[in-house]
Amino acid sequence: MPRKWISVLLLLQLSCHFSPGSCGKVLVWPTEYSHWINMKTILDALVQRGHEVTVLTSSASILVDPNKPSAIQFEIYPTSLTKDDFEDLFTRIISKWTYMPKYAFFTYFSLMQDIIWEYNDCIQTLCKEVVLNKKLMTKLQESRFDVVLADAAGPCGELLAELLKVPFVYSLRFSVGYTIERYSGGLPFPPSYVPVILSELSDHMTFMERVKNMIYVLYFDFWFQTFTEKWDQLCSKALGRPTTLFELMGKADIWLIRTYWDFEFPRPLLPNFVFVGGLHCKPAKPLPKEMEEFAQSSGENGIVVFSLGSMVTNMTEERANVIASALAQLPQKVIWRYDGKKPDTLGPNTRLYKWIPQNDLLGHPKTKAFITHGGANGIYEAIYHGVPMVGVPMFADQHDNIAHMKAKGAAMEVNMHTMTSADLLKAVRTVINDPSYKENVMRLSRIHHDQPVKPLDRAVFWIEYVMRHKGAKHLRPAVHNLTWVQFHSLDVIGFLLACVASAIFLITKCCLFSCRKFGKAGKRKKRE
Amino acid sequence: MPRKWISVLLLLQLSCHFSPGSCGKVLVWPTEYSHWINMKTILDALVQRGHEVTVLTSSASILVDPNKPSAIQFEIYPTSLTKDDFEDLFTRIISKWTYMPKYAFFTYFSLMQDIIWEYNDCIQTLCKEVVLNKKLMTKLQESRFDVVLADAAGPCGELLAELLKVPFVYSLRFSVGYTIERYSGGLPFPPSYVPVILSELSDHMTFMERVKNMIYVLYFDFWFQTFTEKWDQLCSKALGRPTTLFELMGKADIWLIRTYWDFEFPRPLLPNFVFVGGLHCKPAKPLPKEMEEFAQSSGENGIVVFSLGSMVTNMTEERANVIASALAQLPQKVIWRYDGKKPDTLGPNTRLYKWIPQNDLLGHPKTKAFITHGGANGIYEAIYHGVPMVGVPMFADQHDNIAHMKAKGAAMEVNMHTMTSADLLKAVRTVINDPSYKENVMRLSRIHHDQPVKPLDRAVFWIEYVMRHKGAKHLRPAVHNLTWVQFHSLDVIGFLLACVASAIFLITKCCLFSCRKFGKAGKRKKRE
Repeated sequence: MPRKWISVLLLLQLSCHFSPGSCGKVLVWPTEYSHWINMKTILDALVQRGHEVTVLTSSASILVDPNKPSAIQFEIYPTSLTKDDFEDLFTRIISKWTYMPKYAFFTYFSLMQDIIWEYNDCIQTLCKEVVLNKKLMTKLQESRFDVVLADAAGPCGELLAELLKVPFVYSLRFSVGYTIERYSGGLPFPPSYVPVILSELSDHMTFMERVKNMIYVLYFDFWFQTFTEKWDQLCSKALGRPTTLFELMGKADIWLIRTYWDFEFPRPLLPNFVFVGGLHCKPAKPLPKEMEEFAQSSGENGIVVFSLGSMVTNMTEERANVIASALAQLPQKVIWRYDGKKPDTLGPNTRLYKWIPQNDLLGHPKTKAFITHGGANGIYEAIYHGVPMVGVPMFADQHDNIAHMKAKGAAMEVNMHTMTSADLLKAVRTVINDPSYKENVMRLSRIHHDQPVKPLDRAVFWIEYVMRHKGAKHLRPAVHNLTWVQFHSLDVIGFLLACVASAIFLITKCCLFSCRKFGKAGKRKKRE
Repeated sequence: MPRKWISVLLLLQLSCHFSPGSCGKVLVWPTEYSHWINMKTILDALVQRGHEVTVLTSSASILVDPNKPSAIQFEIYPTSLTKDDFEDLFTRIISKWTYMPKYAFFTYFSLMQDIIWEYNDCIQTLCKEVVLNKKLMTKLQESRFDVVLADAAGPCGELLAELLKVPFVYSLRFSVGYTIERYSGGLPFPPSYVPVILSELSDHMTFMERVKNMIYVLYFDFWFQTFTEKWDQLCSKALGRPTTLFELMGKADIWLIRTYWDFEFPRPLLPNFVFVGGLHCKPAKPLPKEMEEFAQSSGENGIVVFSLGSMVTNMTEERANVIASALAQLPQKVIWRYDGKKPDTLGPNTRLYKWIPQNDLLGHPKTKAFITHGGANGIYEAIYHGVPMVGVPMFADQHDNIAHMKAKGAAMEVNMHTMTSADLLKAVRTVINDPSYKENVMRLSRIHHDQPVKPLDRAVFWIEYVMRHKGAKHLRPAVHNLTWVQFHSLDVIGFLLACVASAIFLITKCCLFSCRKFGKAGKRKKRE
């Protein structure tokens, strides 16, 4: 009970209504699916603390649903895209990315490049329809927002902040090759011990792995150079002066990075990068009655939870049968989020659901393992509740996320396209029966729960901080004022080498001159 | 009142006695003067939270006084040094360092090197007398400590931790040239925008300043290479296996750095570096009656506080007169910490004190300015209470600290040896009458007060964290496993360049071979 009192008192004390003038207005530039699920947690917390939150969303949005009851306000702008266009785009992207040939480096990444450009074109269309919509922009100007909160994965938030002349905060899981974090954020990533995202490497690399990591870094650097031309044009047009997307991105006051050291390998950070991984995690609520009864019927064997996330709900019939026949051989009961045709090999121990309360299931005492596509949100829920994982990664950062969990001993991986029933069965049995997986994920869980401030509170604190202080420029490193050559001190090294070379040259010349002079004088003396 | 209740409830909740088994045993390796003052704040907080704190101190210690009433326990070890030897050493060091010719780079730093080696020899003697004292070591072993808290400025804590097989936490303001932080901590310091300590540069550097910064970095790197030979021998002897001091230092679980972004320029950090600057600061308590009356008698003009810190309490008669005559011309009342002969030019507005309650004075509403030697503790008290400063730096990091405050617009600087009364008077008048100084220091004060967790609570949290988890290895970057060449990826770059060169060579050879072959064939055809 005392803890509850403290929480109530703290909540009262902490609400912005108790400090007059400190309730602010937040404008949000969101992205879809899991990104939105994560960001909504922050927005709900901001609303709960008394702030006015307005989400800028298009009439084609999928998950950002203004009709759902919520204290969040939605500013819906018209777009030439339809909801179907948008959904088609994501379906196409996922399908392409999932079946890309991972073994062929250049083919894989050039296909990925195409996908990201297609997505990017779509986001740019939306952005154009906002920033060039004079009526909307006037309305936003008049609303006098205190901060823009934007998902850096879909640009436009930084441009809006610049147009509205307000500070902004990013939420970001990762950018391809960490290029945005590096080039716009100024974050150092020494390639010798920081594996670049999508490389699936750990922080302990062999020589050849370090070579691979360096090739990835160089490749993404090259990619990055060719990436933003269209955005630069849009930004320059909207602002009426030449600028670049990455210059605007570099003005972010705070970067909320959606990971933490339970998940990441330790690496350098900057004072304006705040790691808030797992901010959406919370204690489990009771399950729906039918699901609870099914879970309880598992007895001591417990249950296995299986989900491929919010973007993938079905698969080919053949794959579904392979999976179902593996699950049928488990002594556990299985709860499987699946929207396709019921597989013929489905065992009596497995139940299919179109939607599952994933967090509540992972926090259920009967849960023994989590079969996951490896999205960061799901992995964080597994870490939070201490559930070992079997990863079935398919696209985006999922391979990398599972690689992290494997390196930390909390997961096994199977290949969605090539695995047999035996492979999946073996993996699930191993993470359940080998106690090291449970021990390791419990260690990660302890790391996650033992932080001076909870991730969600930290995220809210820094957004409010930016509102209170109208930015956080004192946390932004001076690296933003340097060119690439200056940053790497190449001009200084060149100058110092030139000085040393000149000194050596002068000394040598002097020595030679002296030798010649004294030599001649010596010869003359000898002749005399 | 509600805030008070919350504090009491939180205190109750947070005390380690409320979580059975979480009260720990802390062994402390301290250093003297301001370092001890700062560390004692942490120790008092640990004791208040129910931990058992044992300070390992020599019979020659100056400030670490086991006879003062305190809940901290002291383990006093015998030493061949006397208290007088120790005091003489510090007096000699301060006197030498204060009068070193700052204009001559190499002379200045080689003299500084001598001083630091002299200090280092003394600390090594103490360390030897602990680690080779079998009886004492057995007693410490039997005490079963949970963590060692050590000031990294005086090595030995890391060796003790290794011998006792317990994790350890460092407290550190800086090491010369940041060499310990770089080479043992793995902290990146890009010389293009991170001014090296003792360079007195800011983070916005001109080309020539970047050249200067690079020369400092190279110089300290060279120095560092020659620094630790004796320590390496002692560590190897004590542990019975070959090792180095910096290898042991690199095992630190957490580095508590005694600055924060109100004071520092933003720069890269690592997950196991926690910035806790100003942890010793606290609200002002009422002044002694006589001092309060004197402060109140200043009317609207207010008071000026003047102190040269815990190590310097007097100066030459000539300098004292120059200062006193400047202070005499101020409309403010002046409170001066001074233990020398009363200067002839002392004005009626100035009172001398052998000791002053500095924090209470800086927090007094009448205080208008602080004349300070620029020690980090005093600067933090001025930031905490928002008092503009006039810096009279003399040695160690004092010049650098004042350079930081100047760059942030919160201080002016005068030269202790060359200033006239007019210089000092002008500086004090400027920081009082030019409102920008007050505004800037208030901005720093707001930054200082607006942190998610207070610095002292953060320091205590991480010490307790290390006790709870028996270390914090998940925050330690993998850079520690790499050689210098590997860390800078020089082997990888070399390999990739060799690959490119081989490819170019092969392609050229193939082209030449083809040209020759087809050329000959062509000629033959022509002939036919």
